[in-house]
Amino acid sequence: MDDSIYSSYPPHLNPAQQEYLVTTIKDWASQNGLVVRPSPALISQESNPHGVLATNAPVTLFPSLFPKSCFEEAKALQTVYNQLYAAITCNEEWIEKVMEDLIDVDDFVSNLWKVHLAVKKEGYAQTLSLGLYRSDYMPNISSNSKDPSLKQVEFNTIASSFGGLSSLVASLHSELLTSPPGHPISYPPHPMLTSGQTPPENTSVETLAAGLAAAHNAYGGSKSSPALPSCILFVIQENERNIFDQLALFKQVTKTHKIPVFRLLSSEILNHTSIPSSNPSRPLVYTPPHSLSTQFEATTVYYRCFYAPTDYKSERDWEARAHLERSAAIKCPTVLNQLAGCKIVQQVLAETTGTDHLSSFMAGTDANTLARLRETFAPQFDLSAGGRGRELALNPETAVNYVLKPQREGGGNNIYKSAIPDFLRSIPEGDWKRWILMELITPPPNAKNVALRSDGEVLGGHVIGELGIYGTILWDQAGGNILHNEQGGWLMRTKAKDVNEGGVASGFSSLDSILLF
Amino acid sequence: MDDSIYSSYPPHLNPAQQEYLVTTIKDWASQNGLVVRPSPALISQESNPHGVLATNAPVTLFPSLFPKSCFEEAKALQTVYNQLYAAITCNEEWIEKVMEDLIDVDDFVSNLWKVHLAVKKEGYAQTLSLGLYRSDYMPNISSNSKDPSLKQVEFNTIASSFGGLSSLVASLHSELLTSPPGHPISYPPHPMLTSGQTPPENTSVETLAAGLAAAHNAYGGSKSSPALPSCILFVIQENERNIFDQLALFKQVTKTHKIPVFRLLSSEILNHTSIPSSNPSRPLVYTPPHSLSTQFEATTVYYRCFYAPTDYKSERDWEARAHLERSAAIKCPTVLNQLAGCKIVQQVLAETTGTDHLSSFMAGTDANTLARLRETFAPQFDLSAGGRGRELALNPETAVNYVLKPQREGGGNNIYKSAIPDFLRSIPEGDWKRWILMELITPPPNAKNVALRSDGEVLGGHVIGELGIYGTILWDQAGGNILHNEQGGWLMRTKAKDVNEGGVASGFSSLDSILLF
Repeated sequence: MDDSIYSSYPPHLNPAQQEYLVTTIKDWASQNGLVVRPSPALISQESNPHGVLATNAPVTLFPSLFPKSCFEEAKALQTVYNQLYAAITCNEEWIEKVMEDLIDVDDFVSNLWKVHLAVKKEGYAQTLSLGLYRSDYMPNISSNSKDPSLKQVEFNTIASSFGGLSSLVASLHSELLTSPPGHPISYPPHPMLTSGQTPPENTSVETLAAGLAAAHNAYGGSKSSPALPSCILFVIQENERNIFDQLALFKQVTKTHKIPVFRLLSSEILNHTSIPSSNPSRPLVYTPPHSLSTQFEATTVYYRCFYAPTDYKSERDWEARAHLERSAAIKCPTVLNQLAGCKIVQQVLAETTGTDHLSSFMAGTDANTLARLRETFAPQFDLSAGGRGRELALNPETAVNYVLKPQREGGGNNIYKSAIPDFLRSIPEGDWKRWILMELITPPPNAKNVALRSDGEVLGGHVIGELGIYGTILWDQAGGNILHNEQGGWLMRTKAKDVNEGGVASGFSSLDSILLF
Repeated sequence: MDDSIYSSYPPHLNPAQQEYLVTTIKDWASQNGLVVRPSPALISQESNPHGVLATNAPVTLFPSLFPKSCFEEAKALQTVYNQLYAAITCNEEWIEKVMEDLIDVDDFVSNLWKVHLAVKKEGYAQTLSLGLYRSDYMPNISSNSKDPSLKQVEFNTIASSFGGLSSLVASLHSELLTSPPGHPISYPPHPMLTSGQTPPENTSVETLAAGLAAAHNAYGGSKSSPALPSCILFVIQENERNIFDQLALFKQVTKTHKIPVFRLLSSEILNHTSIPSSNPSRPLVYTPPHSLSTQFEATTVYYRCFYAPTDYKSERDWEARAHLERSAAIKCPTVLNQLAGCKIVQQVLAETTGTDHLSSFMAGTDANTLARLRETFAPQFDLSAGGRGRELALNPETAVNYVLKPQREGGGNNIYKSAIPDFLRSIPEGDWKRWILMELITPPPNAKNVALRSDGEVLGGHVIGELGIYGTILWDQAGGNILHNEQGGWLMRTKAKDVNEGGVASGFSSLDSILLF
């Protein structure tokens, strides 16, 4: 691939140019809600006892370059991916088989599975299931081809975040590219910045909110007697710093779809919701603590928590999760759908030997589309004894082309390249099954950008960008009928290269947007 | 007047209700740009070296009650007031005569006057003059009448602020009153909060931006050769905390009117603007420091600084003011228009003996309108020897009904009631001419509200509210022809009662909105 377009981008900033961009972005962010609550490292709890402060979300000063062919392909495949993960979620036996080993060794996965089994035993009160997904990709540079190919990094089935803020970053960069009106001079002259091109339309907020509204409307009338007004619940973490990302969706659902939304801390679920034991339909009744004489029936539960083990601080949190799972509310996602997002599923789908799981799940889809989907899979392996994965991981010469990832989604803590053999030898062999070995994607090596961090530091250098595409799907677990399947909106996240190698201190990870080429 | 409607308002908040409102408002403010930069008292410079933090503007939890008749009257009179202050500004001789004494004793007024004289000597290069005004009122309770009357507190002719944020507060309170959609329960039940009524439409941003656009468009073609693209300059203070108020106008002018706007620190005026000495039209040329190869011609200079003596730190600031005044840019406001906003003008207009200045200035206006305008004047007096004002101010028994205000606009530091006689005796008699004695307005005594301060503290109690109405006018100083005269938008500011009496520490001064009754 011809990587030369990256070499001269972005243009150099002299101090006055950087000062102008930083000031403008800093102010724009606070004016338009492109903000986060500051971390305790930036502002201590004592300096901010009432939590009133906000600061800009970390953002790049420039939009990043992104291959148009990869962007279009990622968009084109999103509804296919939506459908695939719905189909997987409908096949409980398959999930169980794939997860079997993991259930044995991973408390988190095991506890999720127990929630599913308990509700299954009682019988699910709701067969509709909602997915608000984000599929993350990188363009992969290969010596075999002049064009970059699209490779999937991960597929998120729970709490897919940044849809709210990412559309704001696209607006910010678009404004910089076109301001002042008629005589744009916010950026220094550069062919990519003066072509009149702006980032592609970003409808992430509209798409995700429309998904929630589709579930809300599909829920049907109140199952309570007497009937209750209906609402959507956003279940959230305590001390969430990324709250304004969530509030962007909240606002869209409330203003455009006129649906009541309440935010509920995960620790408060059991205090403020109930399922009347006398009602076999199991409606989820929410009583707002600030208006105890009013009750709402929750049609949809949207999780922005419960995706990581740290979200379950005690048995009570598991109880709360099970409580919501057995209710009649449509979950986004169900426990099964969350489990379908584990890395091991991605790995099994990508296996090139044995059963063709992809074709089984997508029986009605044409071969060409399936081939394109498969093309986005990065080669990946489990670490079973005698397998190819174990061989590649333990050999220092081959390990440098791989990343070791926890099988669980959202687990973090990837191990890279030459660190892999030593790491594996440092943990019990019995735990190796918790890890997936994935061939490293080779992103454009000359990509560069400059970022404004949340603490106001400005840092530039070589970067790696990850593009996420949002999709929403509503389906019936009983039979797999799809009621709503859409793609729309995207996220560009850009990290300083050293961050991906494990370093954090001097680096950055920023929200970004894209200019296509 | 029947004050009973205030007695039961606002409703009591239990802890859960208050928590809900405070959290919702805090988040809404940061999401929607209803924010300010935190004061150094809240967050030290060291904790926030890059100035990235923002916090909610101080706001009331509830909209305040306001008499509909007073609101309508204030709106109806705004274009008349606009015209009056344009007419005063056109009469330089009259201003000089009224100001004569003040010019002698007040350096600030004297320096402004010198700027005018210097430019006058050279000849003004621009006869168009733009006013973005705010007329501030209180409803006055009188034992003589059952209805409250409208009394003017002051008329602002320079840097009339809060238009940007006040419309956001109206939106915030409207949302609280109507949310969640279909089942509003954000506020506890109360007849005024459940009637479906929301604050009146607040078009302050649209009105002020339209005023700036009117001036920009009236400027005509470029006076430079070769012709330059045109822009508006917002001239601002260093470390402005209320920047998001200004940015709301900036955004409206840029997005709706497609006019380039640049922010220019008052300390940078002489560095980045120039008037070509070879061009007798004296265009004001702005060179953005981040794009030195581009030049713009400023059609309009909008001051959000230079209104107080502290804005002029050295002779260079006066030089900068004079530099802009002699340019061809339309000033908002001119020095003469700023001087017309001095308290002494208000006082002379309110005089009930001697020349009827009001009728002279407004010769074409019907007697009824003039009577209504006069009705809004609070009785006020100068402190000249042997005059009624001096007598009222020095007698402790009469002083309790008055406030002593500096003659200059925006001077602050009012002296109240029984403190007046001692204060006057503590300063040289020669300085008394700098002060105006004004009969205290009696606002509704039972008005109450609760405020969320910028530091997150929540305080409630008895309050005094001040309503401002925005107006814009563009006229030709040469002949007085009016090209644009509009009213639109309002500001409600609510202070804890003790603040107005001089106390600050435990009080609050908040942005608010109104519910009419």
